[in-house]
Amino acid sequence: MKVLVANLGSTSFKYRLFDMSSETQLARGGVERIGSPESPCFVEIGSSRTELRTPVPDHAVAVRTCLAQLTDPVSGCLKDASEVAAIGFKAVHGGRVSGVQRVTPDVLAAMEEMNLVAPAHNPPYIAAMRLLGEKLPEIPLVAAFETGFHNTIADRLRTYPIPHEWEEKLHIRRWGFHGASHRYIAMRTAELIGRYDLRVISCHLGGSNSLCAIRGQQSVATTMGMSPQTGLPHNNRVGDFDPFAIPMVMKEFGLSLHQVLDTLAEKSGLLGLSGISGDIRDLEQAAAEGKSRARLALDVFIAEIRRHLGGLLVELGGVDAVVFTGGIGENSRATRAGVCAGLSELGIDLDLAKNETHRGEGCLSSPASRAQIWVIPTNEELIVARQTKHLLEG
Amino acid sequence: MKVLVANLGSTSFKYRLFDMSSETQLARGGVERIGSPESPCFVEIGSSRTELRTPVPDHAVAVRTCLAQLTDPVSGCLKDASEVAAIGFKAVHGGRVSGVQRVTPDVLAAMEEMNLVAPAHNPPYIAAMRLLGEKLPEIPLVAAFETGFHNTIADRLRTYPIPHEWEEKLHIRRWGFHGASHRYIAMRTAELIGRYDLRVISCHLGGSNSLCAIRGQQSVATTMGMSPQTGLPHNNRVGDFDPFAIPMVMKEFGLSLHQVLDTLAEKSGLLGLSGISGDIRDLEQAAAEGKSRARLALDVFIAEIRRHLGGLLVELGGVDAVVFTGGIGENSRATRAGVCAGLSELGIDLDLAKNETHRGEGCLSSPASRAQIWVIPTNEELIVARQTKHLLEG
Repeated sequence: MKVLVANLGSTSFKYRLFDMSSETQLARGGVERIGSPESPCFVEIGSSRTELRTPVPDHAVAVRTCLAQLTDPVSGCLKDASEVAAIGFKAVHGGRVSGVQRVTPDVLAAMEEMNLVAPAHNPPYIAAMRLLGEKLPEIPLVAAFETGFHNTIADRLRTYPIPHEWEEKLHIRRWGFHGASHRYIAMRTAELIGRYDLRVISCHLGGSNSLCAIRGQQSVATTMGMSPQTGLPHNNRVGDFDPFAIPMVMKEFGLSLHQVLDTLAEKSGLLGLSGISGDIRDLEQAAAEGKSRARLALDVFIAEIRRHLGGLLVELGGVDAVVFTGGIGENSRATRAGVCAGLSELGIDLDLAKNETHRGEGCLSSPASRAQIWVIPTNEELIVARQTKHLLEG
Repeated sequence: MKVLVANLGSTSFKYRLFDMSSETQLARGGVERIGSPESPCFVEIGSSRTELRTPVPDHAVAVRTCLAQLTDPVSGCLKDASEVAAIGFKAVHGGRVSGVQRVTPDVLAAMEEMNLVAPAHNPPYIAAMRLLGEKLPEIPLVAAFETGFHNTIADRLRTYPIPHEWEEKLHIRRWGFHGASHRYIAMRTAELIGRYDLRVISCHLGGSNSLCAIRGQQSVATTMGMSPQTGLPHNNRVGDFDPFAIPMVMKEFGLSLHQVLDTLAEKSGLLGLSGISGDIRDLEQAAAEGKSRARLALDVFIAEIRRHLGGLLVELGGVDAVVFTGGIGENSRATRAGVCAGLSELGIDLDLAKNETHRGEGCLSSPASRAQIWVIPTNEELIVARQTKHLLEG
C-alpha cells in the first residue's frame, strides 16, 4: 500500500510518499506559491530531483500536478495515480472529533467549529481538504488529528477550572497537539533504549513548541491546552497568557477582541518579544551581537521550557529520558544546554562536550545523569502514514 | 509604635493591632455587614471579647467604631486613638506602583488602572482607602502591595511573550501576589531551619492560591501572573486559562467579554469545576459522599499544584524545604498528601503518619526526604505591620 502524506500551507502543498509494505519513503515533493502565475513544483525520487514551473491555481491542481510528476513514465515512481491508496493529513484541531478519521462533511464541520481556536492551522486545511474531496473524489482523504495521541491524558490533567457547561457544550479542555511527533518520539525512544515502560519527556521545539510526558509510550500530560497558542512561546504565537490583560490592550490601542487575539496568534511569541524575528537562529545571532531584546526572547523561551519541563517531571515522579526533537531541539545547542542547566540534582545532567559536537540521533547525557538525554529527529509523516494505513485496513 | 493592619472586604473591616516595640498583637477586631441597619462589631483584647451591634454605614464609621472600642476606658487597650501610628493595608495590585507606599491620590490612581485586572480585590480597597483618607485624615494610611516581594524575580521569568509595547505601556507582566505571606514563610523557614541560603517552595493554599520559589529569602519565581486570577485554580477564580476559548463562550452563551471575564473571576475555580462549592472542606465531604465533580475539582486542584511545584523545582534546581501555609495548606491533610505523592525520587518524601496527626507549625518530612516538608501558619499582618513601621521610620 502506498500512502501520500500531505503538509498544507495556505499557498503551499508538500508531501512524502510512503510504500507501507516496507515503511520506506518513495518520493517527496511539493508546490509553492499556489495561485501565483508560475508555481514552482518539485519532486525528489531517490537521488534525482525534477523541477517545473506551471500555473497552479489551487490545492486540487497542486495534487494533480504532483501525481503527474510521480507517474511520469521516465522520471516517476508510480505506474498509475490509483496506486496512491490515500492522502493522509496531519490535521490540527477537530475539537469533538479526534483520533484518525476519514475526511467527511462532519469531520470538516467539527474542524470549522475550531477555526477561531486554531486560526493559523485549521482554515487552510479545511479549504484544501474540501476542494480535494470535490475534485479528486477517487482518492480517500484521512485526517490524523494532532490531539489524538493525548486521548490517554487523565481528566484531572485535561480539565480547566471553568463552569462545567463550558466543557460539556464547547469541548473547552486541554487537548494538546503535536501528537504525531510525540508519538514517534515515544516509540523511537523505547526502541533505542530497549525498554517499553519508560518515563519520557519529549521536547518538540521548532516553529511551534510543546512538551509531552510519556509513560509506557502513552501521553500522560502535555503543555498545550485548548488552542495551539498555549503552553510554551512559539515563533509568532503567544503561549500561556492572562485573559484579564486583554481589556487593557483593547482600550489602550483601540483594538477589538479579535484583533487582540490575532496579535497573540501572529505577532507574539519569540517575534513579539524580540521585535526582530520568530526564528531562533536569527535571535541567537542578534543576541550574540548584543541585541538585548533578542537575548530576552531566548531567555524567556528557555525559562518557559524549564517551567513546563518541571511540571511534567513532577507528574511522572522522575524521568528516564529527556528527548529533544524538532528544528530547534535537533539543532540548537544553546537551547538544550539552557534547558538542562543546573538540573543534576534532579537527575538530568547534559554532557556539554557531546552537546556541542553532536549531529543527528544520539545520546547526550553524562555518565552521572540518572536520565538519558537524547536528540531524536522526529518523523511525523511516518506516523501519519501508519495511521492512514491502519484506518484503511479497518 | 502601634500599627493597625486592616483586612477589607466590600462590606467588612477586620484588623489586628500590633505593638511594634515587641511585635506583639494587642488586639483584633472588626465590623461585618457594613451598610446594613445593624452591623455586628467585635474586639478581642487578651482573653476578653466585646461585641456590640450598631449602624455602621461605611468603612470610615467602621474604623471609628473600632477605635472607640479600642479606647474604651474599661475594656480598651489604648488611651487615645492617636496612639495608632498608621493603618497598614495588604493592597493587591498597583501595577506600576509596587512595594510599600503612603496612600496618595497617585497610588489610588495606579490601583484604579488595575481594576479590571483585579476586579474582586482592588475596588473595595480603593473605595475604603479613599474614604478613610477623607474622613480620618489624622491617621496615615500605608499600602503594602502584594506584588512587592516579587520585585526580585528576573525579567526572563516575568515577561510574557507579547509585543514589547504592551508591557511598556500597560505593565503587562507576571507580577505575582501573596507577597506578604510568601515573605513571612521565607523568613520563618530560615529561622526554623537555621539557614539563610535555603531554596524554599512556599505553597500558600487557601481561598486564593499561589506558590513561590524562594532562594536566600528572595522571591525567584511565582505562579500568579498579570492578574490574581492566574496560576492555580482558586476558590471561585479560574487560574491559568486559554484566551482563545473566550470567543466560543461569548457566541454560545450570548455573553460580552466582560461577562465572560466576570464568570472567570467569580464562578470558576473550584466552585465552577465542582458546581457545589469553592470551599475545599465542602468538596472533601462531597467527594467522600461519591460526588464525582467534587472529586474532579479536588483532583484538578492537586494536579495544578503539582504542575506549578515542578516548574519552581526546576527553576531552583532542587529544593531544601517545601512549606505549606494558608487555610488549606495548614489544614488539608489530603491536599498535602496528594501534592507530595510519588516524589521521593525528586527528594520530596512526606511522612504520612505525621501528616495525618499534625497540628500547627511543624516538620512533616520522612527521614529519607532530601527536602524538609513543613507546615507553617502564615502571618501576613505581621509583615504588613513591619513594612508600615519601616515606611513611617523612613
